Amino acid sequence: MTSTLPATATSREDAAALDVADPLAHFRDRYLPLAPGVTAYLDGNSLGRPLAAIAERSDAFIREQWAGRLIRGWSEGWMELPEQVGDELAAATLGAAAGQTLIADSTTINFYKTLRAALALRPDRTRIVIDRDHFPTNRFVVESVVRDLGLEIAWLPGSVDGGVTVDALAEVLDERVAVVALSHVAYRSGHLADAAAITAATHRAGALVVWDLCHSVGACEIELDAWEVDFAVGCTYKFVGAGPGAPAFLYAAARHHDRLDQPLWGWLGRADPFEMEQGYRPAPGIRSMMSGTPSIPGVLAVREGARVIAEAGMPAVRAKAVALTELVVELADSWLAPEGFTLASPRDPARRGGHVSVARADARQVCAALVEAGVLPDFRTPDVVRLGVSPLPASFVEVWDALAVMREIGR
Amino acid sequence: MTSTLPATATSREDAAALDVADPLAHFRDRYLPLAPGVTAYLDGNSLGRPLAAIAERSDAFIREQWAGRLIRGWSEGWMELPEQVGDELAAATLGAAAGQTLIADSTTINFYKTLRAALALRPDRTRIVIDRDHFPTNRFVVESVVRDLGLEIAWLPGSVDGGVTVDALAEVLDERVAVVALSHVAYRSGHLADAAAITAATHRAGALVVWDLCHSVGACEIELDAWEVDFAVGCTYKFVGAGPGAPAFLYAAARHHDRLDQPLWGWLGRADPFEMEQGYRPAPGIRSMMSGTPSIPGVLAVREGARVIAEAGMPAVRAKAVALTELVVELADSWLAPEGFTLASPRDPARRGGHVSVARADARQVCAALVEAGVLPDFRTPDVVRLGVSPLPASFVEVWDALAVMREIGR
Repeated sequence: MTSTLPATATSREDAAALDVADPLAHFRDRYLPLAPGVTAYLDGNSLGRPLAAIAERSDAFIREQWAGRLIRGWSEGWMELPEQVGDELAAATLGAAAGQTLIADSTTINFYKTLRAALALRPDRTRIVIDRDHFPTNRFVVESVVRDLGLEIAWLPGSVDGGVTVDALAEVLDERVAVVALSHVAYRSGHLADAAAITAATHRAGALVVWDLCHSVGACEIELDAWEVDFAVGCTYKFVGAGPGAPAFLYAAARHHDRLDQPLWGWLGRADPFEMEQGYRPAPGIRSMMSGTPSIPGVLAVREGARVIAEAGMPAVRAKAVALTELVVELADSWLAPEGFTLASPRDPARRGGHVSVARADARQVCAALVEAGVLPDFRTPDVVRLGVSPLPASFVEVWDALAVMREIGR
Repeated sequence: MTSTLPATATSREDAAALDVADPLAHFRDRYLPLAPGVTAYLDGNSLGRPLAAIAERSDAFIREQWAGRLIRGWSEGWMELPEQVGDELAAATLGAAAGQTLIADSTTINFYKTLRAALALRPDRTRIVIDRDHFPTNRFVVESVVRDLGLEIAWLPGSVDGGVTVDALAEVLDERVAVVALSHVAYRSGHLADAAAITAATHRAGALVVWDLCHSVGACEIELDAWEVDFAVGCTYKFVGAGPGAPAFLYAAARHHDRLDQPLWGWLGRADPFEMEQGYRPAPGIRSMMSGTPSIPGVLAVREGARVIAEAGMPAVRAKAVALTELVVELADSWLAPEGFTLASPRDPARRGGHVSVARADARQVCAALVEAGVLPDFRTPDVVRLGVSPLPASFVEVWDALAVMREIGR
């Protein structure tokens, strides 16, 4: 989990030297250029930049596949794409063997399905553990399910360093807990949880985990199979770069497949869907987690994102994510701390995802001024500037220049 | 609901004359061409053909909007698109005033949400009416909800002419029924239900309706507001032509908005989603039916489909749908009946949607041979060939030629 790149830069020339030494630098050319006037994009943790291949393949899909094959496309491969591309994403960056991952629906819907499937495996237990810093959509889904099924929430006590820990979990984990549902990387602080240890602790208590990987996938190493994760979900429009509203992914460990029971029954989750028979009978394996028809152009965009990660190799991608965020932290210490900004992310890169948050009371105004100056960051209420550096399209000079602008604005 | 076009054709020249007289004929040029070797596309009721504008706008979206605006796109209009394009589709073809329609998720998910919202409005009732010929995904969702909530299904008795009628409904409608959930056009027979009368009968019994419009939208006139429909859903990849897996639509009547309660709570359905606050609080109006992030390219494709329908005008689109299906029925009578095919759709055009089904025991083989010969129909088990004629891209000569091929194959 440590960088193989030297991340120290005390001048813009140093930053440029880091780019020269960056083994992934050539991947930058795969992306469509930034618009005129935009000098730095530091919101890859909200919406990744488009690969040129996505524009090309999307156009080819419409003209050749959709217009050319029409309805035949479904029987010539589209129908299998949610699982195929799921397997490709799993191999590229989830550490999951084939047959356990789907691309479909949104993170919200997938979280609902996996949470309900996990609860169905622990019918005698009554509690779901989440934390207050969990991404809102997950908190809301848990609140709804708790209301529907007459369960209760066990809130994790106040987070340490902006994230979730085994120690915090120990305070609420008991034989009443059915499911522990947490974020691998906290959306606000960027804290990277020790998913292996939390999963193991959860299992020791007889409960199951549902990990939200939205903010870690494509920036952090993930080993779902090795960690013995039960269920996981995540979006593909951040570091995977599949575009606004691209379909999300869903992982369900093979050992649960013979008892998967999620309530959003749809025709594509049924065995032999085109028999149009009476009565729902789940399809074998991961397919039973499908509901309706997924966006085929969206799934194909996920394929492009998975391919570029696979080509770069996740260890190298992670190393660059660490090096980039180390540079952000260094410059925040040197340039922003004197102006009253405080680091709101872990200092230890082993506990940090792909973005760095800095806080100051006027963060909203700072973000507006950054956008005006051609640097695109992200604002999170009430006082956080999130600086998300997507490992494949971002450069060290881009980070240097962006932080230099921020120093001027922050004065 | 009657044709303004003469639909009788006793020669290919007659069919060509119908195309010359067709006021919508010029819309054919808006679509990307059929692939070499394909002479007729009669599966617009499964997957519509792409408008060239969708390819152009999709590419421009990726290059200019996504790459150019990046995260700013969300605050510059993307966030409002599900409602805006919902309103556009509603105005073009749903007969619904603004503020009641969303584009998001799949039909399956939207049906789940609207069914649960309808049930929440009738908490003291225990039954859901559906029919055996309802599209499978809807039957499966109802079966799951019934299991989850301890309700029961009241199956509509055997259909008349392949569809659902007020008389059939009367046999199961009583004070136990909370929701009547039916298809406006039956996916197999093409039977067009009298949605106004069925909705009125349902309301007289104190229950609510959820209409599935998948097979009627873009081919039949729909007046959701005038019919006082409660909820409706439908896909956009058939006659609306927004592409494989494009997001579906969802309608909830304004009179229910102050009590909408659907359980797939997500961040985009919450009031002030970017405040990231604790606790779910539904957004006002139709927005509370949102869950996660919808596909923005998908929503924009729906916009193109809605625009071309609006431009053509739904009365003219419906008139052409009637004229095209009348020609299919005529030729089926003349050419296919002698070969042992039977009409499996209503003869009365006022009771027929945008496709015509013909049945013969070897329908599967007939369909395979048609595809081989460059005519793309649709097969539905066990014995049905569905001939779906999409009013805007289809021509009368295309129908003539396709049925001529089918006559030869059927001999």
